[in-house]
Amino acid sequence: MLIVMQVGASAQEVDDVIKGIEEVGLNYHISRGEERVIIGAIGEGRVATQYLTMFLTLPGVDRVVPISRPYKLASREFSHQNSRFDVGGVEIGGEGVVIIAGPCSVESRTQTLEIAHAVKEAGAHLLRGGAYKPRTSPYAFQGLGESGLEILIEAREATGLPVVTEVISPEQVTLVSGYADILQVGARNMQNYPLLHAVGESHQSVLLKRGISATIEEMLMAAEYILSHGNSQVILCERGIRTYETATRNTTDINAVPVLKSLSHLPVFLDPSHSTGNWQYVPAIALAAVAAGADGLIVEVHNQPDRALSDGGQSLKPERFVEMVNQVKAIARAVGRDLAVPHSNRSVPQL
Amino acid sequence: MLIVMQVGASAQEVDDVIKGIEEVGLNYHISRGEERVIIGAIGEGRVATQYLTMFLTLPGVDRVVPISRPYKLASREFSHQNSRFDVGGVEIGGEGVVIIAGPCSVESRTQTLEIAHAVKEAGAHLLRGGAYKPRTSPYAFQGLGESGLEILIEAREATGLPVVTEVISPEQVTLVSGYADILQVGARNMQNYPLLHAVGESHQSVLLKRGISATIEEMLMAAEYILSHGNSQVILCERGIRTYETATRNTTDINAVPVLKSLSHLPVFLDPSHSTGNWQYVPAIALAAVAAGADGLIVEVHNQPDRALSDGGQSLKPERFVEMVNQVKAIARAVGRDLAVPHSNRSVPQL
Amino acid sequence: MLIVMQVGASAQEVDDVIKGIEEVGLNYHISRGEERVIIGAIGEGRVATQYLTMFLTLPGVDRVVPISRPYKLASREFSHQNSRFDVGGVEIGGEGVVIIAGPCSVESRTQTLEIAHAVKEAGAHLLRGGAYKPRTSPYAFQGLGESGLEILIEAREATGLPVVTEVISPEQVTLVSGYADILQVGARNMQNYPLLHAVGESHQSVLLKRGISATIEEMLMAAEYILSHGNSQVILCERGIRTYETATRNTTDINAVPVLKSLSHLPVFLDPSHSTGNWQYVPAIALAAVAAGADGLIVEVHNQPDRALSDGGQSLKPERFVEMVNQVKAIARAVGRDLAVPHSNRSVPQL
Amino acid sequence: MLIVMQVGASAQEVDDVIKGIEEVGLNYHISRGEERVIIGAIGEGRVATQYLTMFLTLPGVDRVVPISRPYKLASREFSHQNSRFDVGGVEIGGEGVVIIAGPCSVESRTQTLEIAHAVKEAGAHLLRGGAYKPRTSPYAFQGLGESGLEILIEAREATGLPVVTEVISPEQVTLVSGYADILQVGARNMQNYPLLHAVGESHQSVLLKRGISATIEEMLMAAEYILSHGNSQVILCERGIRTYETATRNTTDINAVPVLKSLSHLPVFLDPSHSTGNWQYVPAIALAAVAAGADGLIVEVHNQPDRALSDGGQSLKPERFVEMVNQVKAIARAVGRDLAVPHSNRSVPQL
Repeated sequence: MLIVMQVGASAQEVDDVIKGIEEVGLNYHISRGEERVIIGAIGEGRVATQYLTMFLTLPGVDRVVPISRPYKLASREFSHQNSRFDVGGVEIGGEGVVIIAGPCSVESRTQTLEIAHAVKEAGAHLLRGGAYKPRTSPYAFQGLGESGLEILIEAREATGLPVVTEVISPEQVTLVSGYADILQVGARNMQNYPLLHAVGESHQSVLLKRGISATIEEMLMAAEYILSHGNSQVILCERGIRTYETATRNTTDINAVPVLKSLSHLPVFLDPSHSTGNWQYVPAIALAAVAAGADGLIVEVHNQPDRALSDGGQSLKPERFVEMVNQVKAIARAVGRDLAVPHSNRSVPQL
Repeated sequence: MLIVMQVGASAQEVDDVIKGIEEVGLNYHISRGEERVIIGAIGEGRVATQYLTMFLTLPGVDRVVPISRPYKLASREFSHQNSRFDVGGVEIGGEGVVIIAGPCSVESRTQTLEIAHAVKEAGAHLLRGGAYKPRTSPYAFQGLGESGLEILIEAREATGLPVVTEVISPEQVTLVSGYADILQVGARNMQNYPLLHAVGESHQSVLLKRGISATIEEMLMAAEYILSHGNSQVILCERGIRTYETATRNTTDINAVPVLKSLSHLPVFLDPSHSTGNWQYVPAIALAAVAAGADGLIVEVHNQPDRALSDGGQSLKPERFVEMVNQVKAIARAVGRDLAVPHSNRSVPQL
Repeated sequence: MLIVMQVGASAQEVDDVIKGIEEVGLNYHISRGEERVIIGAIGEGRVATQYLTMFLTLPGVDRVVPISRPYKLASREFSHQNSRFDVGGVEIGGEGVVIIAGPCSVESRTQTLEIAHAVKEAGAHLLRGGAYKPRTSPYAFQGLGESGLEILIEAREATGLPVVTEVISPEQVTLVSGYADILQVGARNMQNYPLLHAVGESHQSVLLKRGISATIEEMLMAAEYILSHGNSQVILCERGIRTYETATRNTTDINAVPVLKSLSHLPVFLDPSHSTGNWQYVPAIALAAVAAGADGLIVEVHNQPDRALSDGGQSLKPERFVEMVNQVKAIARAVGRDLAVPHSNRSVPQL
Repeated sequence: MLIVMQVGASAQEVDDVIKGIEEVGLNYHISRGEERVIIGAIGEGRVATQYLTMFLTLPGVDRVVPISRPYKLASREFSHQNSRFDVGGVEIGGEGVVIIAGPCSVESRTQTLEIAHAVKEAGAHLLRGGAYKPRTSPYAFQGLGESGLEILIEAREATGLPVVTEVISPEQVTLVSGYADILQVGARNMQNYPLLHAVGESHQSVLLKRGISATIEEMLMAAEYILSHGNSQVILCERGIRTYETATRNTTDINAVPVLKSLSHLPVFLDPSHSTGNWQYVPAIALAAVAAGADGLIVEVHNQPDRALSDGGQSLKPERFVEMVNQVKAIARAVGRDLAVPHSNRSVPQL
């Protein structure tokens, strides 16, 4: 942390800053430029962070500049090797590109089974589907709840695809962990700290979606919450950010893919359905993600998008999804990877 | 909801849209322009909303344009009169401008009592202070929890100021309601639906902060969640939004004040501490808020901002807060209002 | 400028950075923290700025952090006194709040004279009106050009109000300077450097509007262009920035008012017509601006907004403008100022 | 254009809107919903656009919703075939992916020739280099001007690569057209209408960069300016937009690639150097662009990025550029394209 003094700050003001640094147990280092004095507060980075703003209130201080990154367990410095882990026989974070696909919401047994079979056949590795839906409107469909989870389990039995589903409240975590292979923390909950705490204490893998206006650093801090509570199986998922552009529902931050791969050892996925909000643009962005280095995709597929209870407009029909998987495979090979190949000895989690 | 067909959409495509509208129980109305056909789906606005995206997947559809506002109970059409309610003897939403002040976090008994007395003396109407803190870093101070709530109660006893404090999880709502006069839902939780549901079923007033990148419409939808669960005492609080500008921590969306007053009957407050992130700019923005029509302010005050465990840089010292209250009074009078005057027969909520 | 080395950068990498600093003629200063080395490049701030990105390419460098502000003539350090100057008998930047009002475009002689008389009577100090209009669509009304300027002159003769009008191209500057009292540089041209250069060499006052997504620092750099070419009479004008919010045309960055007053000595105005895009919200934001410390306002007024050739939706009718001026006066007095009083010995610029 | 009346608007208010529509020469169509009346104004889309805001001022009007797209010549409806054109023997907009590469600025003869040879050898199709530089700081290097153009010509003679360079002022267009094969309109000038007008009247191809906060629609309107002045050879270039994210210089709007391809027939390029601002991320984003359907790339390459007078931090070294070209080729093939192959009978433009 650097404390940049104002041009013309007095010696007394500099001394007061130094006293403050010492009081919180940090060391310091003074640099006197032609225009101004800069004081470095030296100490363990994560400790220093919490004192960032308090120095701003001292007379003569112009700015406080953070230097250390505030996360540690999520950082590339912590682990130079990419994190890899197995979910129901599928390796996440390895050489193979992983595709998660399925409906936005579990609407019915028939719908879910039909889509599950279709995406399995097309080459998807995991099945997604929401049983608890965070919806902007209190009057919109809120999900089937636990009976939705039971349908997902049935689809897993039928297809062998491990299941990804969302948790929206800390007290659900134990229940949902009994069903799901991967717990999804949605964009609206990326900074729901009690929830991050709860999934951090679970033993399930977590797909952490980026908040709609979260910075990359905040996303890594959210991952740090989960990691610091003992759970190391975290997938970072870019899903589009909110910008001024209205031609698409969100703006895919494709830069986030190489940036996250450079700053962190965790697997990086991308959700082209939410990041565009329009099925027409989903395949192009899925290909872009893999070309940019993403380790996987999560894609909404629906057999009857014009009858979907949520997100119909951004869901691919199964036939279009088949095409997309083939194109993704070609791109994966062009960058020296391939689609992931599930292990034969997949063990289905028990209820 | 209007379904705008592509230029050159076929008669069959138009028919398919109409069939879709009928299937979900809405009426329709066709308008044929020189370039294209537009189909209006007519029905109860809040119902129509959830079908918005599914029509996007039908062939020949160019765009879907929502017409009805998706909230009802929060809307100005629902109540042309401003909502007013009493919190511990202070009228919220009335002619008088209300000032909530206090530390970001309850750090200790001494600190809280000292600040409570200072803000009371300066003219504040309610005391703020966080016992549960949602923090970006898992390594930062997370609040004193229930013992923090007890300190707040002691400060209320000592000063007579009703207390505002944050809830961050649905299962806390009952506990915190036993202490607080107003439950604060923070920016990061504006779309935490289980939490909105829980505070909606409580009988406490709620201060709802705008999410850091929430639209005004999404904020009103969040209020609708609370209202639709039976709680009508909701304060809307602008606290700055995230933009590209980095000169301040957030960008105060001052436009939100007249826009919210025009779209809704609920009281509108502004938090200049978070919306600027720098104590130097807090008074100017507090005055701007009242000039623009805000019904109240929530301001961070700390007796030793350079020792605060959170948000020190944006906290006013008590002496600067005194000045600000006087300026706010002058502005309130310039727009034909005044500072609120608490009722004498204030009843302290029982534990 | 600080060059932050990566954790684990080698001694050789540190040496290479130092060599680079020396080669461009700067001094350096090394600070060795527990985790990493930070190298300060010391020299005249504006020189250092242009080397910012090149150090980023050296091995072992993590980040480059600018310290000096890149503008000098526009900075508060350059002049602790507020800049004040006279435009046709009206003091800009003084104690008195200045109101510029008039139509978006000069559409006709009758329209302009009628509006000019109306705003003069209501208390405006200067007349605005565009003769050259930068329009998003090539098919929209582009302004009357020089005959528009002649109409403005006639309105000035008739009312005594000095005239503000926009220049959109460097080769227009001499021509328009022959007519206008203040040259407006519009938001779309805030970084049109040949234009900034040309108005910098003119002897006319300049109203510099903030670009629609310009940072405060970029706005001050644009002012620096004008100042560095010899023209010291620059007004900074906040006019709303582009954000994700669509409830209003732009988001008024009200924070920019106290921030600009703190960073610069130049007068700060605000344009509530463009910053909201809706006449209903204009008065509230005008009051907010003056409460926050703005030195003036520029407001669109039209006698027949529903027949205006541009910006009708954000123009006030004269009767509403009268009310607003009275409210602005009350707010100005509440913050210890008043409306500006033009000097009696106003000299009308000669053609 | 649809005029949405307020809930409860009177019959008189509806009549006044209709009268207004008729007065500007449009037809109308009324749709009466359960809650409110919607009036469609029917006529030639581009005409209707300019009346958008004026209806907002009529009593009883809630919102005005544009329906027709405001551009015509740039639209996919205008030409279902992709636009293709030849620049110095290279087909732009065809099956082959085109790579433009070179330094940010022409700094010297040696530097430019060396880089030109390197990028030619690596497989680039055109050479970029700026002779006139729009710089945020008036104290930064502003380009070599006409002598820079002469160096570019020499590099073209030596390598056979056609040349792309920026124009920043309308009066430069004739001069620069004598040298360059493609005129670049930079991001800061995307809405500099006199400049768009001038390049529209030239007979040179134009590379139009997206403004830093321009919407996709505004970008197409800027192209429409050029097309409507008679120049049909326009390349649309995404170069990153400004968002709240600070981990990269800009946010690459990768969605813009498929959106622009869907809305327009014009060739779409992407500039990964500016859209990331960091050479480390350039190759990943270049690959993403081509995977998403881009017709070409424009990339900054420098032989000594740590000595570059501008944009050093985002420039690739020649050896890294060679690698990138090979990867781009693999991606192009994976999506059924290839790198462009220049025609043998390339004619060098004469001075």
